[in-house]
Amino acid sequence: MADLLEQAKSVKAASRALAMASSAVRDQFLLRAASVLEENSSVILAANEKDLATHGAVLSDAARDRLTLTKSRVQSMANGLRQVAALPDPLGEVVDGWRRPNGLEVRRVRVPLGVVGIIYENRPNVTSDAAGLCIKSGNCAYLRGSSTAQGTNLAIVALLQQVAVEVGLPESCVALVEDPSHDTAAKFMGLNGYLDCLIPRGGPALIASMREHATVPTILDGDGNCHLYVCEHADLAMALSLIENGKTQRPGVCNATETLLIHSSRAEAFFPAMAERLKNVEIRGCLRTCAIIERAIPAKDEDYATEFGDLILSVKVVDTIDEAIDHIATYSTGHSEAICTDNNFFANYFVTSVDAAAVLVNASTRFVDGEQLGLGAEIGISTQKLHARGPMGLRELTTAKWIITGQGQVRT
Amino acid sequence: MADLLEQAKSVKAASRALAMASSAVRDQFLLRAASVLEENSSVILAANEKDLATHGAVLSDAARDRLTLTKSRVQSMANGLRQVAALPDPLGEVVDGWRRPNGLEVRRVRVPLGVVGIIYENRPNVTSDAAGLCIKSGNCAYLRGSSTAQGTNLAIVALLQQVAVEVGLPESCVALVEDPSHDTAAKFMGLNGYLDCLIPRGGPALIASMREHATVPTILDGDGNCHLYVCEHADLAMALSLIENGKTQRPGVCNATETLLIHSSRAEAFFPAMAERLKNVEIRGCLRTCAIIERAIPAKDEDYATEFGDLILSVKVVDTIDEAIDHIATYSTGHSEAICTDNNFFANYFVTSVDAAAVLVNASTRFVDGEQLGLGAEIGISTQKLHARGPMGLRELTTAKWIITGQGQVRT
Repeated sequence: MADLLEQAKSVKAASRALAMASSAVRDQFLLRAASVLEENSSVILAANEKDLATHGAVLSDAARDRLTLTKSRVQSMANGLRQVAALPDPLGEVVDGWRRPNGLEVRRVRVPLGVVGIIYENRPNVTSDAAGLCIKSGNCAYLRGSSTAQGTNLAIVALLQQVAVEVGLPESCVALVEDPSHDTAAKFMGLNGYLDCLIPRGGPALIASMREHATVPTILDGDGNCHLYVCEHADLAMALSLIENGKTQRPGVCNATETLLIHSSRAEAFFPAMAERLKNVEIRGCLRTCAIIERAIPAKDEDYATEFGDLILSVKVVDTIDEAIDHIATYSTGHSEAICTDNNFFANYFVTSVDAAAVLVNASTRFVDGEQLGLGAEIGISTQKLHARGPMGLRELTTAKWIITGQGQVRT
Repeated sequence: MADLLEQAKSVKAASRALAMASSAVRDQFLLRAASVLEENSSVILAANEKDLATHGAVLSDAARDRLTLTKSRVQSMANGLRQVAALPDPLGEVVDGWRRPNGLEVRRVRVPLGVVGIIYENRPNVTSDAAGLCIKSGNCAYLRGSSTAQGTNLAIVALLQQVAVEVGLPESCVALVEDPSHDTAAKFMGLNGYLDCLIPRGGPALIASMREHATVPTILDGDGNCHLYVCEHADLAMALSLIENGKTQRPGVCNATETLLIHSSRAEAFFPAMAERLKNVEIRGCLRTCAIIERAIPAKDEDYATEFGDLILSVKVVDTIDEAIDHIATYSTGHSEAICTDNNFFANYFVTSVDAAAVLVNASTRFVDGEQLGLGAEIGISTQKLHARGPMGLRELTTAKWIITGQGQVRT
């Protein structure tokens, strides 16, 4: 803990210098880091091979794949940094401002949060991705990676720190927690006064641990139990391609569609075509669904509450849009909810009534993602309502400062 | 707990109807509520007399005064509601929006948080103030007041609920926790899924209890250990009026100035005049201060960390602006920090380097307040960095919803 606290202090101290660094210097860091990662890919790959040799055997195939770096993956990390460098600077924007009757000039200006903690799993590419987004937004990146990737992460961070010093930023503007144990992770989540914000990049176990241990301010990625409602005024061909895309294009991600709701007047016309199109998808439906789709199995209540992350779809027939909205209010995780309709009134009614980070009209839930929506870069997708909601870009890594300028005004 | 949960469910259900209520209906609620409070002031005052008779004897004079309502105080509550009604609607604002190359229309729109919990102390006027701000911003107001004011609060809430029904809003859009015990307060702070945001209006004990018990999203009012730095380029007459105003105009509030920092080149010229002007203020200074101001007593380290809330000022002489900024970084609570200077470079350097909700140049720290800065209404002052920082108005009671409109787009 003493070591962690010492490191936290040095990162916090670095955040002051970083808050004063120009946009040019921060971009120079990103561009130079991209080159240095490429030039030193052999160093990174050697560390990665060691991590794989030590931990690879106990990992699942998917986990081992996530841990594995190759020359082309290092190249992707470098290109990611270049893309972030090309984005507009989020800092210095005057959010709003005005002059008071007493002559005081009031402005709210976008400034860095300070120290952003990122806690992540077995993906060494997050090390450079997260560091890039933090430095671009004027924040120190204080990283805690997985023990399985610690050697790789250390190699990457050492290179980034070398670049920081080279461009005139404090070395500690990027730092990696040295002891990747669970015990230290819990202490990391409690670094009050040193972490201005802690963001997890990982699965439900990490989020659960954050909910238990974190006492610093956090932005949590929630689950995505996303719905598509096919309205009585829907174009059924469109509905078909939306549910196919939402469910099958990448079933494991949070913006996949998990439940189809459909107005009773369209079920008979829609279900046979849907069952045909979603051949590989297991269908768990209400009784009215099962009466039409032979292979459907009866849905339990918990099916409607489950983010399957798999080729399984829950289905329910409703008699009114309000019934659909009630169902969503009961089971939604507040991530992304869609309606397919040609009717403007129902579209607006749905958009206004449904309480979620994103509401879509005639578009696949799979679009709810920072890159797809045009943020340029994404640090995560928030399902909380305070500070950041939905896909989070550079702006969500900032806060505002009130700047008040007078000529000696006092309050009477 | 069963009762609390039932009530929480009914408030949450009401929030959906409220999210769809027009600006006109919400304003009608506020204006009608103002009249109904005035018309029924005798009912409110009778309940208040009962509360005073039951609890008045154990309260301090100040606390009894806060609990006491009069006809003119009820009038002020009504006028507060009218002022809030006159503010622009914070909802529906398109925060930003654009069209994607694939034709998707993307907008972020300001929407209510849902249910805002307010937990407050022995001030019945907060009942109508908080309810007004919540309804104006499309949120249900779920209130937990002090046990000493419970009868008065119930009388006010009953009138507000009657008005809600009258204008076509759900009765539960304003609700008061029925059991004002500490035990229920802790449960209230843990109503996950029912409270979208919980805001305390009270002193350090309440904040401490929130830190211990709250598991719902919160916006906390922090302490205000505010500094004024008198730079080597300061107009000393201005500095004198800034410190007098900051320290003495209302010493008990969070935006009062607690510490004066001064460049060593100006101490000799400034201190005698300051000691004379702040006759009634106890001065706790560094050794260099004590060498000039005879009546000053040596400051301990803890004096620099204390929000006195009283006619006590800590003072320190520094040799550079960096030393002043370091001192602030060490002791500041991140509320409001001021510099007095005629030099633009130093002004900008201070504004950029100091990490606080508000930074002031040549103005009294006492201006950091929603009304003074022009927000029209204030629900509190946040010293956190996420979501809301500094004075919070109606906008801080909202969140954003992504609305994505397509013509059947799917992701490839």
